[in-house]
Amino acid sequence: MIIQFKQTTPLIQSIKAKLEQRPAQVEVVGTHLAAIGVKDFTPTAEEAAVIASISFDDPSFVLGSRQFQPEDTVITLPHTTIGGDNFVMMAGPCSVESQAHVRKMAKLAKAGGATVLRGGAFKPRTVPYSFQGLEEDGLRFLRQAADEFDMDVITEVMDVPHVEMVGKYTDVFQIGARNMQNFSLLKAVGKTQIAVGLKRGMSATIDDLLNAAEYIRANGNPNVFLIERGIRTFDNKYTRNTFDLAAIPVLKKLTHYPIIADPSHAVGVRDLVTPMAVAAAAAGADGEIVEIHDDPAHAFSDGPQALTPDLYKDMTRRVNLVRAALA
Amino acid sequence: MIIQFKQTTPLIQSIKAKLEQRPAQVEVVGTHLAAIGVKDFTPTAEEAAVIASISFDDPSFVLGSRQFQPEDTVITLPHTTIGGDNFVMMAGPCSVESQAHVRKMAKLAKAGGATVLRGGAFKPRTVPYSFQGLEEDGLRFLRQAADEFDMDVITEVMDVPHVEMVGKYTDVFQIGARNMQNFSLLKAVGKTQIAVGLKRGMSATIDDLLNAAEYIRANGNPNVFLIERGIRTFDNKYTRNTFDLAAIPVLKKLTHYPIIADPSHAVGVRDLVTPMAVAAAAAGADGEIVEIHDDPAHAFSDGPQALTPDLYKDMTRRVNLVRAALA
Amino acid sequence: MIIQFKQTTPLIQSIKAKLEQRPAQVEVVGTHLAAIGVKDFTPTAEEAAVIASISFDDPSFVLGSRQFQPEDTVITLPHTTIGGDNFVMMAGPCSVESQAHVRKMAKLAKAGGATVLRGGAFKPRTVPYSFQGLEEDGLRFLRQAADEFDMDVITEVMDVPHVEMVGKYTDVFQIGARNMQNFSLLKAVGKTQIAVGLKRGMSATIDDLLNAAEYIRANGNPNVFLIERGIRTFDNKYTRNTFDLAAIPVLKKLTHYPIIADPSHAVGVRDLVTPMAVAAAAAGADGEIVEIHDDPAHAFSDGPQALTPDLYKDMTRRVNLVRAALA
Amino acid sequence: MIIQFKQTTPLIQSIKAKLEQRPAQVEVVGTHLAAIGVKDFTPTAEEAAVIASISFDDPSFVLGSRQFQPEDTVITLPHTTIGGDNFVMMAGPCSVESQAHVRKMAKLAKAGGATVLRGGAFKPRTVPYSFQGLEEDGLRFLRQAADEFDMDVITEVMDVPHVEMVGKYTDVFQIGARNMQNFSLLKAVGKTQIAVGLKRGMSATIDDLLNAAEYIRANGNPNVFLIERGIRTFDNKYTRNTFDLAAIPVLKKLTHYPIIADPSHAVGVRDLVTPMAVAAAAAGADGEIVEIHDDPAHAFSDGPQALTPDLYKDMTRRVNLVRAALA
Repeated sequence: MIIQFKQTTPLIQSIKAKLEQRPAQVEVVGTHLAAIGVKDFTPTAEEAAVIASISFDDPSFVLGSRQFQPEDTVITLPHTTIGGDNFVMMAGPCSVESQAHVRKMAKLAKAGGATVLRGGAFKPRTVPYSFQGLEEDGLRFLRQAADEFDMDVITEVMDVPHVEMVGKYTDVFQIGARNMQNFSLLKAVGKTQIAVGLKRGMSATIDDLLNAAEYIRANGNPNVFLIERGIRTFDNKYTRNTFDLAAIPVLKKLTHYPIIADPSHAVGVRDLVTPMAVAAAAAGADGEIVEIHDDPAHAFSDGPQALTPDLYKDMTRRVNLVRAALA
Repeated sequence: MIIQFKQTTPLIQSIKAKLEQRPAQVEVVGTHLAAIGVKDFTPTAEEAAVIASISFDDPSFVLGSRQFQPEDTVITLPHTTIGGDNFVMMAGPCSVESQAHVRKMAKLAKAGGATVLRGGAFKPRTVPYSFQGLEEDGLRFLRQAADEFDMDVITEVMDVPHVEMVGKYTDVFQIGARNMQNFSLLKAVGKTQIAVGLKRGMSATIDDLLNAAEYIRANGNPNVFLIERGIRTFDNKYTRNTFDLAAIPVLKKLTHYPIIADPSHAVGVRDLVTPMAVAAAAAGADGEIVEIHDDPAHAFSDGPQALTPDLYKDMTRRVNLVRAALA
Repeated sequence: MIIQFKQTTPLIQSIKAKLEQRPAQVEVVGTHLAAIGVKDFTPTAEEAAVIASISFDDPSFVLGSRQFQPEDTVITLPHTTIGGDNFVMMAGPCSVESQAHVRKMAKLAKAGGATVLRGGAFKPRTVPYSFQGLEEDGLRFLRQAADEFDMDVITEVMDVPHVEMVGKYTDVFQIGARNMQNFSLLKAVGKTQIAVGLKRGMSATIDDLLNAAEYIRANGNPNVFLIERGIRTFDNKYTRNTFDLAAIPVLKKLTHYPIIADPSHAVGVRDLVTPMAVAAAAAGADGEIVEIHDDPAHAFSDGPQALTPDLYKDMTRRVNLVRAALA
Repeated sequence: MIIQFKQTTPLIQSIKAKLEQRPAQVEVVGTHLAAIGVKDFTPTAEEAAVIASISFDDPSFVLGSRQFQPEDTVITLPHTTIGGDNFVMMAGPCSVESQAHVRKMAKLAKAGGATVLRGGAFKPRTVPYSFQGLEEDGLRFLRQAADEFDMDVITEVMDVPHVEMVGKYTDVFQIGARNMQNFSLLKAVGKTQIAVGLKRGMSATIDDLLNAAEYIRANGNPNVFLIERGIRTFDNKYTRNTFDLAAIPVLKKLTHYPIIADPSHAVGVRDLVTPMAVAAAAAGADGEIVEIHDDPAHAFSDGPQALTPDLYKDMTRRVNLVRAALA
């Protein structure tokens, strides 16, 4: 059930308290109240006077829905604002490779306009014998590099036991596509207040993605944004995945969470990243996350999709041109 | 086999003549010669002197490949140029509904910058009991409307016996997604010189699409362009298909044929057409084909995806802004 | 609208005649009447007395539905009965390669229990430069071979202008997967009384397949059967397509048309054909269509999926064992 | 690198010891040695004399491959043998609902021939507000029920912190489809010796599945079996997923792990479970895992796909008939 009130009033909290006596989770944002699982409610006359509408026909991802929270979620990091009218650039290497290398990449990322530094210290690799990341050392190098260039950090957390440790180093937990329905992990990051960037699973529907985000939000963490990174379809000869750009405007209608585009993983091929980054900006994304590398041929992972320094700067320039044209 | 010559020389034609004595189809464009199926060739010393390279490692769609024809295909219609540096807008109703209505739609299309009028007179409908089109009357109305507003016509041809008749009315044959591998039809339009807009099938790979185009080109018709209109994937709750925008830059690398985006069929939902049209332009499309209707609720077909007049004009405005920004 | 009558009665024909005065197509099978597009009907008291039920909630494929025709469609060919309690084996080479070869293949097919000889004379090839078939010569060779061994013929018809000619040679028109929504072709074979084997398109839903069959049935030809031959999904490294065996029991519930399994195209790999043929029989298929070849390495097309003579005989043996066990 | 020895010899262990001085993981099964990542090896003359072959062209899932271990993996539980010539039936409710109910379901499962009792105590639910399982109480009830009827237990473990606790109650860890690439969890169960049933992810390729299994095997646990439970495709109107039955014979060729079919989740519809269970047996599965319920309308989860007692018994009967026919 979602109740929309006509105005802010102490009755919101009293109705909330009343509903919480039922076995129901109740949440309030501004003039909207959601009572999950509640299917009947008869307001008193006094209550009815301040209620604009009551709806029992909620989506399963009620807390993530625009019906419950019409205003955009805006996430404030030390150096970055995600959501609302802001456009954010996140960039960095696929893997943290060394202290010196990630510092170099941070400098490059910042020079191209990024305010969030990405880099993997724990890597979810399809094959167990591939490079699995520098682990806590990688996190430390990433944090140092970001701090030196006044950037925020996004990095992947892969399991529940790592949440506390990774949380000491990062501003944003990235949940990878393969873990999008690792519900234990979603609950664990949902119990923190650290921002979470949730990647769409490779066969996740839009509803699946929003239900996964709901696990985070329902556990108390409202600092959620979504990442479209391509889905798996029948055609993967020329691209790694199929970039579902229409998901961006679809999600903007359904949810208040910011939507970030990840063209690097979506296409997996360097030459295609820029046109797709530009297209994502044109489609209304709230930002981009891209992989960069100064020497892709020797990258520890995902070299073929990393933008070289020149391509990265050209990409940000073109994205900004499109953003300005459509402003 | 593809032979690239260093320059234009009479030897190209003499080599062509020599190769045609084998059971091989030989085609020449500029300084490139393709001999299909030829796997060995030893030039004379005189010939070798003018040859830059010989390759036996051709794609199956050799005539459509950039290796054979590096320059963009440019198709010239009376009022429109497709390909090269040109950007084309094609618009019109899904179905031709009446003489008066298609005239009204032509006026609207033109006002928004379209130079090609679309409209179906023969409709490939999933269910046999749905409206199947006005047939030849529809073609006549479409032609009249286009002529009045100095526009070119694109309309679907559905089978071999109709090629001649439809060809009397149209400037461009549209081959629908469901007929992309109707090889008899591809051969038939390939034997004309009328331009062909070939829509990607809903489960066609990039290679499938290029091989289908090859049927047209190999039968003698070089006036081919491709239309990306979305593919079928696991998620179709909020969109009709999944718009594979990365196919645009992929195809631009592989082939010289122009690539037109069809956001209307790709998403199937009016509100999403504009962001996707803008994204397609940003991704490098050579033009757009969209459905418009002044009264979508009463459209004979595909009303939910038709742009209203206001939305259509806003879409063309935004597409032009992005095009200008990236020029 | 579907009317189910309590018994056979002259009132069925009189109601049919009455409904045909509306703009409606009306069909009767036994005690069931379907009036397509009719959304209201008030029987007289006399009529009401013989009516068991009236339903306005019909599937789009009304004539193909079990609601309209509860009894299995049974198709009678000179040497074969398809549907009902019969199980049919269809076998032969992918392409008709020569008069002698198809004769040899017919003998082999018959020895393994097949009563229908398959073989392509017109081949829908993805690439235009691949072998396209022996055309009318191929049809003649195929017919002769079948006649010699008292078999029926199934062969593909690819376009409208060929329907008449192919019809002179074949007992069953095969409509290929790529032509499943070639509606002109469906209408054309629907206007004959020759049996039609309709292959599921590679991205066709169950409903798409039944709507395509409806094009044939609504044009007057009730002799339709369906062929499941695999769909296109994200995984095609070890199999050509994904064999959707659950479609067999799903279709058996929805429609009265017989369902034939095509394991050869579904998997595309010789070693997998037998287990999948056996699985299809276990799942309730009404028969199988398989490709066989005595020298697959030199087959004109689809060699890798052709069963050798020994494998073919083992396959039919195992299919029969499973059929007997479940009888 | 895989070395196949001509016979058992002490040289196998000495070569293993020598290779382990490199940074390489080395495993031996019988007369086969795999040295992961090793790309060069020159045997001494003495060593060469006992070596049948050396291959450097290994699949990424080397320990799971038939090249490394030609013999079937056979897993021995107290009451059940999985793999080899055995066929195993696993059955039980989707969720453990109560002590009394799971006992009743165990009795039913056993009566139909099952020797492994399934039941979820921790449930991975798409929506956070759905029933999440009885947790440790559920495990206790499940264990008691299995013990009473001399059965083994399979139950899902959802995250690393639960591995130890769930391991106290179960004979088999089930890894769910959504966790197939939860690599931390795979490593954690790989460090135990408890059997693991790994479900194929809904968009996992065959290679993805085998690479995921490799995470378990490479961490020291050889007791792995695979579960095919359907993949996500474009058609889900009549079935929950698409049951990829061809994966069974494909996997039997590639790997020595047993393959169990899960028709319940594959189709999601009660009436289709039996034909698909029978088809899976015909396709060569090493067993089945199915959901049963005495009152599906009131099941806590997945009621629509649960077999009723009568349907369950009929299913096992038919599966056994097919198994016997093909023996």
